[in-house]
Amino acid sequence: MLHPVVLSGGSGTRLWPLSRQNQPKQFLALMGDRSLFQETVLRAHALEGVQPPVTVCSEDHRFMVGEQLQAVGVPSGGIVLEPVARNTAPAIALAAMHVLARDPGATLLVMPADHLIEDEAAFRTAVDTARALGDEGCLVAFGIKPDYAETGYGYILRGDALGTDGGYRIESFVEKPDLATAERYLAEGTYAWNSGMFLFRADRYLEELGKHAPEMMATVREAYAQAESDLDFTRIPEAMFAASPSDSIDYAVMEKTDRAAVVPVSCGWSDIGSWSSLWSVAERDADDNLHEGDVISVDTKGSLVRASERRMIATLGVEDLVIIDTADATLVARKDRVQDVKAIVDRLKGEGRQEHLFHRKVYRPWGSYDSIGVGPRFQVKRIVVKPGAALSLQKHAHRAEHWVVVSGVAEVTCDDSVFDLRENESTFIPLGSVHRLRNNGTEPVELIEVQSGSYLGEDDIVRLEDVYGRS
Amino acid sequence: MLHPVVLSGGSGTRLWPLSRQNQPKQFLALMGDRSLFQETVLRAHALEGVQPPVTVCSEDHRFMVGEQLQAVGVPSGGIVLEPVARNTAPAIALAAMHVLARDPGATLLVMPADHLIEDEAAFRTAVDTARALGDEGCLVAFGIKPDYAETGYGYILRGDALGTDGGYRIESFVEKPDLATAERYLAEGTYAWNSGMFLFRADRYLEELGKHAPEMMATVREAYAQAESDLDFTRIPEAMFAASPSDSIDYAVMEKTDRAAVVPVSCGWSDIGSWSSLWSVAERDADDNLHEGDVISVDTKGSLVRASERRMIATLGVEDLVIIDTADATLVARKDRVQDVKAIVDRLKGEGRQEHLFHRKVYRPWGSYDSIGVGPRFQVKRIVVKPGAALSLQKHAHRAEHWVVVSGVAEVTCDDSVFDLRENESTFIPLGSVHRLRNNGTEPVELIEVQSGSYLGEDDIVRLEDVYGRS
Repeated sequence: MLHPVVLSGGSGTRLWPLSRQNQPKQFLALMGDRSLFQETVLRAHALEGVQPPVTVCSEDHRFMVGEQLQAVGVPSGGIVLEPVARNTAPAIALAAMHVLARDPGATLLVMPADHLIEDEAAFRTAVDTARALGDEGCLVAFGIKPDYAETGYGYILRGDALGTDGGYRIESFVEKPDLATAERYLAEGTYAWNSGMFLFRADRYLEELGKHAPEMMATVREAYAQAESDLDFTRIPEAMFAASPSDSIDYAVMEKTDRAAVVPVSCGWSDIGSWSSLWSVAERDADDNLHEGDVISVDTKGSLVRASERRMIATLGVEDLVIIDTADATLVARKDRVQDVKAIVDRLKGEGRQEHLFHRKVYRPWGSYDSIGVGPRFQVKRIVVKPGAALSLQKHAHRAEHWVVVSGVAEVTCDDSVFDLRENESTFIPLGSVHRLRNNGTEPVELIEVQSGSYLGEDDIVRLEDVYGRS
Repeated sequence: MLHPVVLSGGSGTRLWPLSRQNQPKQFLALMGDRSLFQETVLRAHALEGVQPPVTVCSEDHRFMVGEQLQAVGVPSGGIVLEPVARNTAPAIALAAMHVLARDPGATLLVMPADHLIEDEAAFRTAVDTARALGDEGCLVAFGIKPDYAETGYGYILRGDALGTDGGYRIESFVEKPDLATAERYLAEGTYAWNSGMFLFRADRYLEELGKHAPEMMATVREAYAQAESDLDFTRIPEAMFAASPSDSIDYAVMEKTDRAAVVPVSCGWSDIGSWSSLWSVAERDADDNLHEGDVISVDTKGSLVRASERRMIATLGVEDLVIIDTADATLVARKDRVQDVKAIVDRLKGEGRQEHLFHRKVYRPWGSYDSIGVGPRFQVKRIVVKPGAALSLQKHAHRAEHWVVVSGVAEVTCDDSVFDLRENESTFIPLGSVHRLRNNGTEPVELIEVQSGSYLGEDDIVRLEDVYGRS
């Protein structure tokens, strides 16, 4: 059976300020209503004879993965939590072990969570080709036929054709080329971009990993053996996994195995590695602009402008800019400089700030909160609690809270009393009282919380009980 | 006696989005903590033997004028409310009549409210020179000695020196020149920019206006005779004042009188007519940038970047931009195109929007409110009530309100009960109830209001009583 493995890594830097460490690129709806992660799992789910996808992600993103799968109606094949990032080779090994436990003949289709593929039919054809090669024991890389001389990707040089139509032996992997070399690769027609997508039998991958990276293999196997299951999550012990060498599948396995194959494909692929790359793949207006949200532009050309909720962006006489607005930060960059947005993120890190970590609106397993107003000794939050969800039973040492429900019906626990709070009703949670908010209904509960106190940090919380295992 | 007359007109377009129709340029703190209006009245107030300034402004700005005067401790010589804009000649005539009523020998120092003057000593010396000429019956224009070939201003060509050192007869007024002409004016040294500042005896101005613009004179006199006093305001009847021809003092009087004089001065003057002009007069950093607020810039040059409260702006690889952020709108413009910001304002007008009229935070005579969150059937406002102030006694047909006081002590009236609400206390104002909020204390009251209802527009209000005459 074919098991998609979705690698949901990534630090959320390159599309800052829309992407944050807590909500990296793959979880953003960059084009249309669905996130790249959702597009990826839907694409996998549409393949013939496919099993539910296994997602490998970090602890921080586990609830977002679960929710985004649920929102598009794709069942989960399990969410494997990497305690630390060790690059792709160990991550894929975890997924292989996870899948082999229930399907010893499993084939893996490895897909990064944050790539765009416009031509799904071409992709499906390539997967069919790769499956035939995988059945024969090959480790298959999907190569993207280049349509211009890109210098930002690694390339795969194909060798002899294999029996299966459209598959080739891999002659070599080559590093990111300079422009002249990239132009030669493009002209020669035998080079393809290394897309980061792979297909192979799970047992073959582990066999090759054991041969070429035995230390990694042993460490990951030991770590996986100690994994704990928790809801849909498979939690890998941090200390053990952290001991693994960090390496990519390319270096650790693909360049070393003698059964490496490549299936070159043209499928409208992009890794959306920067704001300019999003601009270049999107449909643009007559002035070559890509506008999202409430944008008024005068004499503006070649620009990507993204407004955020309740705010407008006006542009005048500018060209080739990227303007990305969010609730707490706006980026204005020259389009050909956006790959350096990391310099800004580094500055934020260096100054101990938060704008690279979180959005103002923060997602939690029970819903979300957004800090819409702050002042001395008070803070106002807009809180949404999903149907069936509950915040932890908690108390605060330094703040009291006023809750005003503006939609839905909330069940409120406050010390010894439990009562319903409906639209246009309010209550007061005194400092130190033990309280909980629960949504037993079928519609979201939305409420305004006014916090009042001497200290209003998120860390002033004692969780006494939590349905999400956070107490 | 010398009576400063501060002309506070202006539509608030050129410094959009910071300036709005409801809060034009003169009321903004563009450099430092004080607004241009406040700097203007302080500059006037510092002159020797000067009376409190008379302000001529529109109805919309009356409370702001009063508050801004109070905030810098300058007494008011009266606030004359122009019901419609009729340019400077009628506005100055109103001020002249207003002042003559209590000082028949009054001399007027006419100052636009929105100019910057860096060298106050040079300005004071020029006023002394002008006063001597004014005493002799001259109508004096302050000319600014040009330091570059500006094509955006009108010029004044001086003629013979008058007896008073530093004063000249005016040979002629000349329109905005082209660049070659402006360069010649600069080289010749006998031309000065027409600053819009004037000094003359009030009776002499009216005498000359009666001679050269008799219809305007008659209309304004009739309108002023019907004026009504209300607190510190002098309210001119709209229908009568609207009948006056609209004209500038330059055309209506200065170009026609044979007693026109000019006092050229170098006083670091600027009319801050655009964002680029603010940039050019301000102190800039080593990369020629002017940053206000929370700005992180990487490889950025020659730019003016202004962040707003609780939001950061990051710039990367850009040059010669103007980036102005506000709570509801952000402008990104090429610096040499900012004079066209009017095109954006026109677009907003055409689309029936609000972003050129009001800021999200709206000033009222009793304080301010800011709409910090909106959703279906609810809105959250942050409200500040000044010490001693009160909102009108009011009711709403379509919304209930929850109030949570976060600082100060509010006196709440709700139907038949009146009670105090302290920090961290809340109350509910049911739909249809007659209510009022009053601050009897010495500190501002700050509260969070959560409105809930089917319609939340500002026009759902019935004012039963109002201390500011708005019921």
